[in-house]
Amino acid sequence: MNIGIVGLGLIGASMAKAIEKMGGNLVFGYDLNLDVIAAAISDKTIDRAGKDEDLQSLDMLFLALYPKDSIEFVKRNKDKIAKECILCDFGGVKKIVCDEISKIAKEKGFHFVGGHPMAGRELSGYFASKGDLFDGASMILTPDESEKECGEKLAEFFKNLGFGKVVFTTPENHDDMIAFTSQLAHVVSSAYIKSPEASRHEGYSAGSYKDLTRVARLNEFMWTELFLENRAPLVREIDTIINHLTEYREAIAAGDEERLFNLLKDGRERKEQIDQEVE
Amino acid sequence: MNIGIVGLGLIGASMAKAIEKMGGNLVFGYDLNLDVIAAAISDKTIDRAGKDEDLQSLDMLFLALYPKDSIEFVKRNKDKIAKECILCDFGGVKKIVCDEISKIAKEKGFHFVGGHPMAGRELSGYFASKGDLFDGASMILTPDESEKECGEKLAEFFKNLGFGKVVFTTPENHDDMIAFTSQLAHVVSSAYIKSPEASRHEGYSAGSYKDLTRVARLNEFMWTELFLENRAPLVREIDTIINHLTEYREAIAAGDEERLFNLLKDGRERKEQIDQEVE
Repeated sequence: MNIGIVGLGLIGASMAKAIEKMGGNLVFGYDLNLDVIAAAISDKTIDRAGKDEDLQSLDMLFLALYPKDSIEFVKRNKDKIAKECILCDFGGVKKIVCDEISKIAKEKGFHFVGGHPMAGRELSGYFASKGDLFDGASMILTPDESEKECGEKLAEFFKNLGFGKVVFTTPENHDDMIAFTSQLAHVVSSAYIKSPEASRHEGYSAGSYKDLTRVARLNEFMWTELFLENRAPLVREIDTIINHLTEYREAIAAGDEERLFNLLKDGRERKEQIDQEVE
Repeated sequence: MNIGIVGLGLIGASMAKAIEKMGGNLVFGYDLNLDVIAAAISDKTIDRAGKDEDLQSLDMLFLALYPKDSIEFVKRNKDKIAKECILCDFGGVKKIVCDEISKIAKEKGFHFVGGHPMAGRELSGYFASKGDLFDGASMILTPDESEKECGEKLAEFFKNLGFGKVVFTTPENHDDMIAFTSQLAHVVSSAYIKSPEASRHEGYSAGSYKDLTRVARLNEFMWTELFLENRAPLVREIDTIINHLTEYREAIAAGDEERLFNLLKDGRERKEQIDQEVE
């Protein structure tokens, strides 16, 4: 197949490397940064620099851009994309992207399925990419009713590429879940590090501080956009954790041993049950 | 030296194993559970089961108990402890323990220094113990003015045992710091897992959800006691993170891109600066 990848940052370039490793396809790379294109060609991450006219010949086209940029790309290039091409974006929120791009895809006759590869690093950009980033990871796909078949084709492709599983869901459910599993984690971690004690923590921490603050080292350009594109679910999750934190706070302030014990026990039991279900 | 260890759970038995590995001492183990004593003798974690009369012959006595139990142990045995013995407890809060035990130690003429080995596991109890648990970890010691010399002796001992560093501080500062680095992490993790979305997270999480919820799997007996013994600093830390979470929440709900960007950027910069200072 001819596969185009737009945006050779951490996700796009890691995907290109995984595809090259799998073999059997021709990868066209697109990036605004020509130094990145040169590097990607020289280290064989891509087969060639994609041109506008190449869009016509692609079987699959992956957009590894921020959501707004994916939408912009499709608006700008909608007339150049081949009719049978399967387009898939990798943005961290899905509803806003799927609503916009699905409409254009239907108008223009190409296929579109929203996607979200569940892998990342604290580093970003081309030089942080690696061909095994997605090994064993989960790939989320949000095909609408008319695109089930393309969803299956993509699922097979991503499994062959090394993904551990493919999850099909709706854009809305994706955004609800991601607000909890990923966005809230970044908000909490970023808030955690702001205690005045943080700068004095050396010698006073075992693993838990380290775990809680790891993802405070985030890319604020990307997360600002993603958070604002998923406002309602994320605000709901922040409210939920604030409400729960307030319960612990009240029990501790009141010295209510029984209540505090039950809050902690309930948390421990939920965690154990959830981990068990996943195993 | 003759060294007594009271409480052969995760911390006490790991300490015993590290001491046996170092060699050159005789370890007396104390535990209410006789099966644990039998196991500890049979696998050479301790040299012998400690008896009341052995307390008279110990050079060092370590209390690996919950804080209240350490205080109770000292009250019950204060007349049996040798005059020159150096007593050190390993409880997760220090002010309440140091206030009580220091008074008794001065009355009775033995030495006391509060301690906190900064290592742990999600598992607890004798069978989770391991001789390398403290390798490279930090040991916090809180000697008062009159016990500086014993503090130095203990510091040397713990460094020889494999600890990476020894931090001297006051019980008050220890409790302030631990409220942030450890207790708050457990509260936040326990609160995090309580979202209704948690049970459906499979396939929607990369590393951040896992990090944020790891320590929700906690021992509620121990943490209930520790939280209530450190109420004021912990409530202050919970209030601090709730206030910061509220800032993010307001910026997101209002769609205030500039404010949200600056909150995230500030968090990322703090995290990077702190990590750099520690390196």
